[in-house]
Amino acid sequence: NMMRVAVIGGEGIGPEVTGQARRVLSWFTERRRLPVTLEDAEFGLEAYRRTGKVIPPETRAAIDGADAILFGATGGPETAEVPAEARREGSLLKLRRSLDLYANLRPIITDPALYEAAPLKERVLRGVDFIIVRELSSGIYFGEPRGIETGPDGSRRGFNTNSYTAEEVRRVARFAFGLARSRRGRLCSVDKANVMEASVLWREEVVALHASEFPDVALSHLYVDNAAMQIVRDPAQFDVMVTDNIFGDILSDCAAMAAGSLGMLPSASLGPADTRGRRQALYEPVHGSAPDIAGKGIANPLGSILSVAMMLRLTLGQPDDAALLERAVADALARGARTADIAEPGQAALSTAAMGDAVLASLERL
Amino acid sequence: NMMRVAVIGGEGIGPEVTGQARRVLSWFTERRRLPVTLEDAEFGLEAYRRTGKVIPPETRAAIDGADAILFGATGGPETAEVPAEARREGSLLKLRRSLDLYANLRPIITDPALYEAAPLKERVLRGVDFIIVRELSSGIYFGEPRGIETGPDGSRRGFNTNSYTAEEVRRVARFAFGLARSRRGRLCSVDKANVMEASVLWREEVVALHASEFPDVALSHLYVDNAAMQIVRDPAQFDVMVTDNIFGDILSDCAAMAAGSLGMLPSASLGPADTRGRRQALYEPVHGSAPDIAGKGIANPLGSILSVAMMLRLTLGQPDDAALLERAVADALARGARTADIAEPGQAALSTAAMGDAVLASLERL
Ligand SMILES: CC(C)[C@H](C(=O)O)[C@@H](O)C(=O)O
Ligand SMILES: CC(C)[C@H](C(=O)O)[C@@H](O)C(=O)O
Repeated sequence: NMMRVAVIGGEGIGPEVTGQARRVLSWFTERRRLPVTLEDAEFGLEAYRRTGKVIPPETRAAIDGADAILFGATGGPETAEVPAEARREGSLLKLRRSLDLYANLRPIITDPALYEAAPLKERVLRGVDFIIVRELSSGIYFGEPRGIETGPDGSRRGFNTNSYTAEEVRRVARFAFGLARSRRGRLCSVDKANVMEASVLWREEVVALHASEFPDVALSHLYVDNAAMQIVRDPAQFDVMVTDNIFGDILSDCAAMAAGSLGMLPSASLGPADTRGRRQALYEPVHGSAPDIAGKGIANPLGSILSVAMMLRLTLGQPDDAALLERAVADALARGARTADIAEPGQAALSTAAMGDAVLASLERL
Repeated sequence: NMMRVAVIGGEGIGPEVTGQARRVLSWFTERRRLPVTLEDAEFGLEAYRRTGKVIPPETRAAIDGADAILFGATGGPETAEVPAEARREGSLLKLRRSLDLYANLRPIITDPALYEAAPLKERVLRGVDFIIVRELSSGIYFGEPRGIETGPDGSRRGFNTNSYTAEEVRRVARFAFGLARSRRGRLCSVDKANVMEASVLWREEVVALHASEFPDVALSHLYVDNAAMQIVRDPAQFDVMVTDNIFGDILSDCAAMAAGSLGMLPSASLGPADTRGRRQALYEPVHGSAPDIAGKGIANPLGSILSVAMMLRLTLGQPDDAALLERAVADALARGARTADIAEPGQAALSTAAMGDAVLASLERL
């Protein structure tokens, strides 16, 4: 019963970091003789140059046949040559939507080696370990009607719709409640119910689900503005946070600084469970394509490597290996491995590949 | 030519902090013999209990006749006894909208006395001095259609509309460009143009206005998620930031922690200029009604007192007095005056009134 992982580096620093994550994934599939095949696929600018499509048919086939996707990054100014229409057709948003990836998990974990190091210790907060569950398939990203319209007098108006159905709220909330139950038992739901009806519905559905299925989980609510402030002030207070698409986008970047660098953060985006309990899943670092450092071999691959740990846990059914990989990353950091984004001034920074080497060396040691 | 200031403490800690800000304002009107009368007005729960309206007719009249409003706070759980309908009629949002207060200024300034104090120095960042200009009269707060609808099958959906006209974008952007020109000449416009058409229009209008009227201002653009991260990482990089209603709400709370406490931050909300160049204006601390500490006399009045400085500058035409008041607040802090929210562990905290005393004492000294 072979499992297939599509490996898609994408654009900007995507291929560089994904290359290291792929090495780590192969280490596990080979050592553990996991029934997994890796299938490399093109995405973005290069694909467009060669085939006229951002997502060529072979890539689409690899995605559709995959049990999991290891994704790098897409977007950025360098891609201006791709017409907007082709870009939209092949966008990450379309991909998320077409796979119905509604639950986006963004763990924020701070590493002791980083928060004990000056000057990072002023920024990296102690003992942070929480997960943002961001609704990823609906809300203002996809709501209709949307557009820019010009009135008879030539005046223009841009508009978007933030829309959530009860069912969309329930499925992501159910996921988040279940996750909280498996952790420290606390869920914080974030909305703007003092302003938006979409948030009023969100809160009502979360409250109802809590009462009917998860009374054992401690549920709290925050308005999004307060949540942003609390994440900066004291992120250690949170266990699991669930919120909508746009709020999750903002809050997870807000939280990223607690971990020292966006480059450290992994993510998993999950679809609905099928009858065998399997979910379509896309794993990617939280950072983007970072065109300013693309091709230089200096990007931090840990966000992508830690996404492999999430894949081991959530798709490949190897929780012990997932934990081993997380320990290996911590071990590499404890032994001083630093890419430029997390290095202290004057400290020598490793290349992307050398950080991959450091993690593999730690895997061998542990 | 008498000017009128309506003083509205409102709910929760609003009356407590406004009481101190009122003392400070009176100090200036009396010492300088400013042609200003203060008119106290009821708002919120107490008003509702007495009159059946959150904004009684006398308050409405005071507001409509005022050149400026000094506002405290509204909202919070304690007000559950007020029916939703009455609450909506008398909400701060309705007030902002009815006065067409489209430009909400939120300065984020960190005080040396705070960033030199341990343990605040881990949180309060050095040399931060920027202003968020938040569009306050439109966007998802007010867009139509909105509501919760139930389908024929009983399924529910909540929805809101984020809508901006070109004119709405231009007037707030024009204000922000002008402000940037009077400061360090840099404006950062924040949107989500990679996802929302409302943001595409926003960006187009900002770019066009820059080219036609403000080519001397250095303009940059950030997506809102990146902006949230940059505000946490390095707020000192910003001079003036302009953004829409909901993004401004979130980003200003995100930025608040850079100043050590939400309790430190003032705001001004301005309407369109009339033929004499005068604008309707509401001054209020950024913090809310904080029901958990209401009535205890421990709230930080500096956000409200610094709002008086903004009033002196923007409505009363006393820029020197505004600067004097800001120096007095810095002097009080430098001499160790601390309310509980900014006190170090073990340090004795002043009451709300004692902090008011400290600022008045500094005004006398300077
Ligand atoms: C690139 C952009 C459309 C995307 C988003 O807003 O979802 C990104 O910010 C993310 O968080 O994955
Ligand atoms: C109370 C709430 C409606 C308000 C807002 O979202 O505007 C508050 O958060 C603010 O920032 O003034």
